[in-house]
Amino acid sequence: MLLKMAVVKRFKCICAYDGTSLIGWQSQASGKGIQDVIQQVLAKIFSEKIMIHGSGRTDAGVHAVGQVFHFDACWSHSLEALLKAINSLLPESIQLTSVREVDLAFHARFSVKKKRYSYYLHLGYALPTKRLYAWSLGRHSYDVDLMKQAAEMFLGEHDFALFTPAAQRKQKQTTVREIYRSDLVVQGASLKYVTEGNGYLYKMVRKMVGAIVGVGKGNLELSELKEVLDQKNQGVRIYTAPAQGLFLEKVWY
Amino acid sequence: MLLKMAVVKRFKCICAYDGTSLIGWQSQASGKGIQDVIQQVLAKIFSEKIMIHGSGRTDAGVHAVGQVFHFDACWSHSLEALLKAINSLLPESIQLTSVREVDLAFHARFSVKKKRYSYYLHLGYALPTKRLYAWSLGRHSYDVDLMKQAAEMFLGEHDFALFTPAAQRKQKQTTVREIYRSDLVVQGASLKYVTEGNGYLYKMVRKMVGAIVGVGKGNLELSELKEVLDQKNQGVRIYTAPAQGLFLEKVWY
Repeated sequence: MLLKMAVVKRFKCICAYDGTSLIGWQSQASGKGIQDVIQQVLAKIFSEKIMIHGSGRTDAGVHAVGQVFHFDACWSHSLEALLKAINSLLPESIQLTSVREVDLAFHARFSVKKKRYSYYLHLGYALPTKRLYAWSLGRHSYDVDLMKQAAEMFLGEHDFALFTPAAQRKQKQTTVREIYRSDLVVQGASLKYVTEGNGYLYKMVRKMVGAIVGVGKGNLELSELKEVLDQKNQGVRIYTAPAQGLFLEKVWY
Repeated sequence: MLLKMAVVKRFKCICAYDGTSLIGWQSQASGKGIQDVIQQVLAKIFSEKIMIHGSGRTDAGVHAVGQVFHFDACWSHSLEALLKAINSLLPESIQLTSVREVDLAFHARFSVKKKRYSYYLHLGYALPTKRLYAWSLGRHSYDVDLMKQAAEMFLGEHDFALFTPAAQRKQKQTTVREIYRSDLVVQGASLKYVTEGNGYLYKMVRKMVGAIVGVGKGNLELSELKEVLDQKNQGVRIYTAPAQGLFLEKVWY
């Protein structure tokens, strides 16, 4: 007798979410982490517990356009049907934009080569329809040229120890990261900070943005920022920008 | 004795709101209409009941970037201080972007010369962060060139009787309106319809968008749309596009 064997395949999914009312990517006891919500949907579709592996965590309130995760399962129908099944069970605030089959050697977290984050800012007060997707800097005046110079200082390899909370710092083998892109794009009162790098520590992008804004406001000197990046000044406190301006845009493998 | 008289001035305000959780502009018994919310704030600031007059109503779920209203009051401090006082008491979903003093002959509704509305659409499914601010047309295929031609057909003076519910039609002296601009701008999967005209009937923009989408989907022929606009065909039902894609952009006086 010939047994038809179910073949386990690995699926790479790209996922977008509106972080506004979500509590972040990581699995929580409450079962309300984005990871939990997706796993609950997969359990319904495959009638078994399925674990997903994300490219990394995002905090409560942070949005994503191109988060990536993978999971292993047996699926004999089309990828289109799988995407449709998952999206129809997910809430509107979390939706997949792509599902494809990948080699079993692919790992959404360990295979990451590069990530891109964008952070949206607004000089003055943001329109109500933008308030959940940008940081409004209010009526204070900012030196946008200095902010651009601050953004450029992140380029290259630096020790970002001071750009993550102390408790997290000790858990990491290294806090050195390389930044390939670090631009502040200005369109009238709307600013968009874009960064690409080989990896980011917990809260790192929000602290980079906090530093850029601090420089623009006159609370932090460019020379002080340089000292912090060169690990020559441990005494500077770097402000953490709020979550709602941050978007995980793309992950490269 | 010289009495210092309080002088009544007229204030023109430009106002933005996120319609997502709002029940529309019009005053309601519940006191939750946008007009009510603003009047409650003005009552606190001026310690008396103040009536505001909008350029026109917007429905529940519709957004605004440039709604205009006026009110009369005595105010001896700066306009900047008035703007700040109002915004600090308004919820984050409703904020003013400008307050200025105008002639007593100005009326936010009767003095309107032109209005601009924008309507955002998305071919396929919109990203979760866009879902409250655009109409996602799903996976059906649309003929975007035909949609552009449909948009152009609205230009000029037409009787828009069939672009408003029958009950509303009878309340109006005339259902003739002139449209100065009617463009469908396409950027990849994102579409933006922009219209400017001397006035719009209840639900008219949403029905114009419904007709454009109907043409693109093949449910409505361009020739049928022409007949409807020429009042030669009363038998066509025009679909009303959902509220969340619509933005009141600007009002001219």
